[in-house]
Amino acid sequence: MKMAQLSTASGIAVPTIKMYLREGLLPPGERIEANQSRYTEGHVRRLRLIQALMRIGGLSVAAAREVLGAIDSDLELGHVFAAASQAATRALAAQQLDAHDFERADEMIGGWRCEGDSPGRAGVAAVIHAFDDAGQAPGDEWYERYAQAAMIVAEADLDSIDRVEGRDAKAVTVVIGTVLGDTLFASFRRLAHQHVSHLRYAPDARIEPTQEKK
Amino acid sequence: MKMAQLSTASGIAVPTIKMYLREGLLPPGERIEANQSRYTEGHVRRLRLIQALMRIGGLSVAAAREVLGAIDSDLELGHVFAAASQAATRALAAQQLDAHDFERADEMIGGWRCEGDSPGRAGVAAVIHAFDDAGQAPGDEWYERYAQAAMIVAEADLDSIDRVEGRDAKAVTVVIGTVLGDTLFASFRRLAHQHVSHLRYAPDARIEPTQEKK
Repeated sequence: MKMAQLSTASGIAVPTIKMYLREGLLPPGERIEANQSRYTEGHVRRLRLIQALMRIGGLSVAAAREVLGAIDSDLELGHVFAAASQAATRALAAQQLDAHDFERADEMIGGWRCEGDSPGRAGVAAVIHAFDDAGQAPGDEWYERYAQAAMIVAEADLDSIDRVEGRDAKAVTVVIGTVLGDTLFASFRRLAHQHVSHLRYAPDARIEPTQEKK
Repeated sequence: MKMAQLSTASGIAVPTIKMYLREGLLPPGERIEANQSRYTEGHVRRLRLIQALMRIGGLSVAAAREVLGAIDSDLELGHVFAAASQAATRALAAQQLDAHDFERADEMIGGWRCEGDSPGRAGVAAVIHAFDDAGQAPGDEWYERYAQAAMIVAEADLDSIDRVEGRDAKAVTVVIGTVLGDTLFASFRRLAHQHVSHLRYAPDARIEPTQEKK
């Protein structure tokens, strides 16, 4: 298909597609004339993946390029996971953290087997540090319940990767799941806040049928 | 204290503090001379809160201004929660979602009592849509396990708000917890991915003591 048809098929505007080509996120089509290329269904699928990573997952062009590169490589799955985690985790101001923050983070993630340079470890340390700074340190139990919930989600993620056949399809699942999973969890968390608030502070609201929200 | 001391006390550079003043995130100090103001411990605490929201939580200046405004207002806690959720949830391309996406989202959040215009509902719908687009739809069970984990975290969040005394302190906890909770969960999730991967694909690694990660 030509550029105009690629735009129709993917629902993405031509200038946006051209930007993705320029930035190396989308591989070039097959050149058929000096000024025209031909694109395939593979380009449509790739465009949808790019959109999912950038628009829903909020990844920058650079971060998207990095994780797409990991998919395209023949890296083993563990490395794809690491690349996706790295790209999808906000650059945390690790230089501001001291050894004590990391020690406390290690206590919170006690029994788990993790790499010391995981962006997750710096993330936990950064949050502990920020709460301390704000004079709002929540108790250890709060962290423990987050860790317990994260384990449920991680098991679900790995089950869903296990179910996909083939290294390349698995690599796409890893990347999209890492990025979209953050958005999904944050969304469910907002909804659960509403639900629990209703139950605790306005329990009579339970009487209304729950499905009529529009 | 003067500007230079405020910078030392907060660990934040003077130009950054001046930017926060210009942007209205930090209230002005008490003017003592034409060219000099006096700042208080309250300014130091406020600066730490701003840093937590922007550097660790990744909020933009506009989003930080919005949630700080909710804290400073006398809005009741439910509205502070809503403002924090709105600001901390990435602007989701809701216009691209159709009624079907929202129906599927409502199925996933079935029994919960939530507002229809919650950013969480649009977030769940956007993730469902993106997975469909990418041809990677995970099963309903995957969503259910995320919802179950989100409920654990929401209960923990509300318990921790309940423990804080006074409307203003509660409002700060709501805002900082909403924003930092996302980062904390995403961090724990990355670590749990590593741990579960180790257990599943390299179980002999369990033998090593887990506390020696550095």
